[in-house]
Amino acid sequence: MLVCGDRPADLRSALDFMRSEGVDLIVTSGGLGPTADDLTAQVVADFAGRQMLLDEALERRIAEIVAVFARRWKLDEDALRVGNRKQAMVPEGAVALGPAGTAPGLVVPADGQVVVVLPGPPRELHETWEQATRTDIFGEALSGATQYRQRMLRLFGIPESEIAATLRVAEEEIDLSPLEITTCLRRGELEVVLRHEPAAEDAASGLVELIARRHADSIFSTDGSTIDDQVAALLASRRLGIGESCTGGLLAARVTARPGSSQYFGGSVVAYSNEAKSMLLGVPGELIERHGAVSEEVAAALADGALERFGADVGIGLTGIAGPDGGTEEKPVGLVCFCMKAEGRDTIARTLHLPGSRDEIRDRATTVAFHLLRRLLS
Amino acid sequence: MLVCGDRPADLRSALDFMRSEGVDLIVTSGGLGPTADDLTAQVVADFAGRQMLLDEALERRIAEIVAVFARRWKLDEDALRVGNRKQAMVPEGAVALGPAGTAPGLVVPADGQVVVVLPGPPRELHETWEQATRTDIFGEALSGATQYRQRMLRLFGIPESEIAATLRVAEEEIDLSPLEITTCLRRGELEVVLRHEPAAEDAASGLVELIARRHADSIFSTDGSTIDDQVAALLASRRLGIGESCTGGLLAARVTARPGSSQYFGGSVVAYSNEAKSMLLGVPGELIERHGAVSEEVAAALADGALERFGADVGIGLTGIAGPDGGTEEKPVGLVCFCMKAEGRDTIARTLHLPGSRDEIRDRATTVAFHLLRRLLS
Repeated sequence: MLVCGDRPADLRSALDFMRSEGVDLIVTSGGLGPTADDLTAQVVADFAGRQMLLDEALERRIAEIVAVFARRWKLDEDALRVGNRKQAMVPEGAVALGPAGTAPGLVVPADGQVVVVLPGPPRELHETWEQATRTDIFGEALSGATQYRQRMLRLFGIPESEIAATLRVAEEEIDLSPLEITTCLRRGELEVVLRHEPAAEDAASGLVELIARRHADSIFSTDGSTIDDQVAALLASRRLGIGESCTGGLLAARVTARPGSSQYFGGSVVAYSNEAKSMLLGVPGELIERHGAVSEEVAAALADGALERFGADVGIGLTGIAGPDGGTEEKPVGLVCFCMKAEGRDTIARTLHLPGSRDEIRDRATTVAFHLLRRLLS
Repeated sequence: MLVCGDRPADLRSALDFMRSEGVDLIVTSGGLGPTADDLTAQVVADFAGRQMLLDEALERRIAEIVAVFARRWKLDEDALRVGNRKQAMVPEGAVALGPAGTAPGLVVPADGQVVVVLPGPPRELHETWEQATRTDIFGEALSGATQYRQRMLRLFGIPESEIAATLRVAEEEIDLSPLEITTCLRRGELEVVLRHEPAAEDAASGLVELIARRHADSIFSTDGSTIDDQVAALLASRRLGIGESCTGGLLAARVTARPGSSQYFGGSVVAYSNEAKSMLLGVPGELIERHGAVSEEVAAALADGALERFGADVGIGLTGIAGPDGGTEEKPVGLVCFCMKAEGRDTIARTLHLPGSRDEIRDRATTVAFHLLRRLLS
């Protein structure tokens, strides 16, 4: 993947590099806007040795889309017309896609290779990509392509070196050479990806089995599901309430990132100040004074408050020190106390010292909370 | 910027491409871990024509760092030793940096170019980069480099085509050719970046002035400050309380992303359910029934509740439909109602129809809230 500035020479050498790598399909994103610095379509046309021609039907379609905005925003019509025309230029022999926004995508044959030109805004990119995959030019470019299979294993609470050791053990039992194996730490979890052609299915299955056996405690997903998927499934018929402090709303935001979460999410109180902890979640001021705001006792009281105030049957209390200031020798930056409660389940209480920056500590704390929630409910 | 997989041939052709582009300095990130798929150091050594040698002092330093983890996590000592040794291999004549984690960075002279090899984890990368910039090899590579100046203008509430029109007007007054101008829509704001050599200072200043004059209502930053910076400064001696629904904690998370925000942030109630709105923020059930949960009336009641319950003097109420379900003809997905209140200021109420996916609507709503807050307080 190559990212470059909107300079014609840089765009062109990026395309030339892809050509020299011998790929069948090149996908570009961005640089299709109405402003003069957006040059991708023209550079791709030059690369493919094709002239730019005005597609009048496309120009009318774009004009119709833009007219809606123009009326709503009271825009300068002349400015829009120049932009329209620019966006309606299509390399000869190429297929224009969309537009999903105002910028059409393109599928451009280029001397044995195919260039798919997509707009940058994510929603437009996704829509236009779907359309591109359905064109004949695209289908021909990928006919006879190698089929890769991919599996994703996810583990929590284990360092990368342990997986490295397991892979060295596996090599003695299994021929790993047809497998491409990558490991990556992401948001406090360890991801192991296996990629292979169909003939290596047995080697892949054998390795998955071996990893699952050696790391039974820490492996939590072999089917591609994320911890967010799993927690959402476990919460389905329940009602969750949260009292969070150092995560500052991030835990609630991660729960509600999921469509349909309103079915099981009552709400969260982001209780940054001690008064808010007492006023909104009924945490006794005396408890805070005795144990400190960052303590398992206060985490438990936050969970209790969340259970009661949101009429929930699953409650999370979370309090910690995200930093960079506010740490002490006894309670350093990164110290986070968790309490997970659910009716009919044993309460889980944990205090962890999370590494990293403020952002990392806050994000990591949400990952830990999700894993503790999984343990509580499964 | 080139992103490639951990395959030696791909890493090498990425380096060769950078060499062919004639850059003075190449920076790599990642691929320095203890696992066998991490090959960056070896590939860079081959690229530079330098042998890998074991740095014994470095090996001991890494061993000491790892020992701390090993004791805490009860890890397999043999697995660690193999990983240690791999991470202590340094190309002949290169400078080893750090390590900030367990993977040292490298500064490698490579036939007229310099390759800086950094570990992937962001915190380690930042620390090691700082060290790299202080090495002699680095300094020599950049001596006599062109000085670029950069300015960032930020605008809100204006489409890209309006800036394109302004640039066409500007061209008639100012020679823009020595300026590199890029425009980018990001999180609902429009960013205009000017990059130039010192000689083009007048052209750059002239353009900034022209844009500021033509778009006085929408330009909010010419000094690099973000809306988050500006809102934080405006809130400094105040106390903010939030009642948010469709943003699900994201607004609080954005406020608290900032170190020191506990000085002015009381807290937020993420009131997803109607009962939570009533129970925690005192929104009358009758009001929700009459106007619907997504209404300016309920937004105002959420702001009132946040003001009162958090003992705040600035209150935000925010309620909307993030989708993908839950929209109606009258109140479609993307409809968000905002209410901003502060003592001694005119209350701001707005209802906007935000475009995009659930993620985009939630994120965009936080941007709008920040801009309305700026308007309320400035």
